[in-house]
Amino acid sequence: MNGFDVRDGELVIGGMTLSALAERVGRTPFYAHDARRIAARVAEVRAALPPAARLHYAVKANPLPALVTHLCGLVDGLDVASGGELALALRSGGQGAHMSFAGPAKQAAELEQSVAAGVLVNIESFREVPLLAAASERLGRAARVAVRVNPDFELRGAGMAMGGGPKPFGVDAEQVPALLRAIGSAGLAFEGFHVFPGSQMLHGERLAVLIEQSWRLVQQLAQDAPGPLQHVNLGGGWGIPYTEADRPLNLLPVSQALAAVQTALQREAPGARLVIELGRYLVGEAGVYVARVIDRKVSRGEVFLVTDGGLHHNLAATGNFGQVIRRHYPLVVGNRMDTAEREHVSVVGPLCTPLDRFAERVALAPAQPGDLVVVFQSGAYGASASPSAFLGHPACADVLV
Amino acid sequence: MNGFDVRDGELVIGGMTLSALAERVGRTPFYAHDARRIAARVAEVRAALPPAARLHYAVKANPLPALVTHLCGLVDGLDVASGGELALALRSGGQGAHMSFAGPAKQAAELEQSVAAGVLVNIESFREVPLLAAASERLGRAARVAVRVNPDFELRGAGMAMGGGPKPFGVDAEQVPALLRAIGSAGLAFEGFHVFPGSQMLHGERLAVLIEQSWRLVQQLAQDAPGPLQHVNLGGGWGIPYTEADRPLNLLPVSQALAAVQTALQREAPGARLVIELGRYLVGEAGVYVARVIDRKVSRGEVFLVTDGGLHHNLAATGNFGQVIRRHYPLVVGNRMDTAEREHVSVVGPLCTPLDRFAERVALAPAQPGDLVVVFQSGAYGASASPSAFLGHPACADVLV
Repeated sequence: MNGFDVRDGELVIGGMTLSALAERVGRTPFYAHDARRIAARVAEVRAALPPAARLHYAVKANPLPALVTHLCGLVDGLDVASGGELALALRSGGQGAHMSFAGPAKQAAELEQSVAAGVLVNIESFREVPLLAAASERLGRAARVAVRVNPDFELRGAGMAMGGGPKPFGVDAEQVPALLRAIGSAGLAFEGFHVFPGSQMLHGERLAVLIEQSWRLVQQLAQDAPGPLQHVNLGGGWGIPYTEADRPLNLLPVSQALAAVQTALQREAPGARLVIELGRYLVGEAGVYVARVIDRKVSRGEVFLVTDGGLHHNLAATGNFGQVIRRHYPLVVGNRMDTAEREHVSVVGPLCTPLDRFAERVALAPAQPGDLVVVFQSGAYGASASPSAFLGHPACADVLV
Repeated sequence: MNGFDVRDGELVIGGMTLSALAERVGRTPFYAHDARRIAARVAEVRAALPPAARLHYAVKANPLPALVTHLCGLVDGLDVASGGELALALRSGGQGAHMSFAGPAKQAAELEQSVAAGVLVNIESFREVPLLAAASERLGRAARVAVRVNPDFELRGAGMAMGGGPKPFGVDAEQVPALLRAIGSAGLAFEGFHVFPGSQMLHGERLAVLIEQSWRLVQQLAQDAPGPLQHVNLGGGWGIPYTEADRPLNLLPVSQALAAVQTALQREAPGARLVIELGRYLVGEAGVYVARVIDRKVSRGEVFLVTDGGLHHNLAATGNFGQVIRRHYPLVVGNRMDTAEREHVSVVGPLCTPLDRFAERVALAPAQPGDLVVVFQSGAYGASASPSAFLGHPACADVLV
């Protein structure tokens, strides 16, 4: 069931049956992230990457400290998106030398923090150059920098396009030569490029084309670099399926494209790092959100399971976080997995708003108050991407098991 | 400008120019709520209500403690949606005897807390009756209750319909007689009814019809009540305009409808309270969200103002909180109000996601880093309805001025 085993009629998460896990957590609702599934996913990605490639985890997907610490032991580095994430990554066992920092509005204090921690800064604006130069001088160490490029090609098939056309992210490819001159003049320690044209890609062949295009762009831009190319970050954006209409990403073409890039990179810039950064793809499918049924109400023929979990904890799963088409995440009654019977129910949360709904007339095992609803695909952009204070309900628990 | 004055080329909020206010708050981004505008709005609503009607504030719209305290001095009671909001309301000066509690998944502990504090509970499910009876017995005081009714008519023209058809909110009108018998048998202190069929209504005539329909429904249901009718809460749902396409609510038909209800109520149940509960309508237009321009980037001909504020603080203003059509809130460069010149710009936040955008190619006064972007209509469903932890950026300040 979405990659989780079933035992004694219950979903198994982190080696425990769901009800045993709920007892251990001590309350509902909660998130649970399966450490072994994360490790298995990392191994699967490693097998698809060229052996020399570096794999980074993008902390923004899930900043739970225990999970970040777990990933520190599995991947080669972390990517952070703010000074807050940088501090959390350091606290959770990350090493500054193996981190990079991207973001369109980096503050002077965040840039200083990055230089002090030896973090590679992905420059997204000319504005950052003098700030990094000042920080370098004050701290007595040259800022390590890469250029985040807004490519001159469009990504087709991404859930969210983040490159091509006018964008707030990165520096337009055509402006990069001037930025490279500014970096050289300022005495910053240039290392390479970052190209991240989109996210939530589910089409392997298109992603492969994009990797090839990104690499050609890097080759071309590197001609104007103020120093040798040491670092090529081709982003991530590898998607996971959220609904039955989604097919899982085919890694084969991606793997082939990356192998070709690694070969060319090794030839043109021996020793340079090829970096792939993934967030959602590493953790999204290993996490579930669990809520308890509080009431079973029948209103004019429609059955509502009213749970203690809602959009305040898992906004995206209710289809309300920027989604244009409201599609709910897959879910089950996790302690009634052996029941063949089905009834059509709507699953809602405790908030006084019609937005607070996890499912609309889906076929589930008949449920009663006390039962546990499990929302799959909840490992990324869950708790941290939800309005936890909305309507004053308790915070949810969040565990790595 | 959206009801705020301009002085010395700057927006005036809480009697201060925007830049003086920003200095006083000490950092950006921040929310600021104008206490005088809230008071003026309450006075305006009072003038539209029958003199005997009670006005309540729905805390969920904005639970900022200072703002709740301010409203406690202006309105007759508070409505809460969780045990957390109830505790906050008590801490902020609210009195339990003048509060009501609604919500579809009330926990046993929340019901006990309500009984202990003397709060009127709007019962939304048969499930609550034995829990309230047990709490009444344990605490030695009868639970004060009203019945939240899911009406048998549809609200047309509401931003979000919360009544009519199958709904998780309230008890279907046709089930209410049985619920009233259960309340009587359990010895709970019955007081009346709550009908709240929708929110964000902008059409005064339709709202007036709805008030009349709700009242007729209450009259009919009251015939089966286990005690005299003392309380009629006809909800709120009064909307505010968010875009130029929205017209403000015309209060005249609403006022006339409520006057007729009050007259009839006084005749049929002398001394009974008519309650109107409003959240967004009281505070939504009195609050602004202020972010500082960090960068002014030009990408392929499009100007981006990159600010330090984003969807992590004001999700709805970016059009990403359950909105099907992404429409942004009105905004200005609040320290350049005397500039007649305009340029078309997109206003984005600091997050690494294309969702983090307050405006798309709007005409604003030309802005530079350091300038202050003001997002209007941000007084309700702002900070508390946003994913504050997303990407690890600092919390925003939130002040009543």
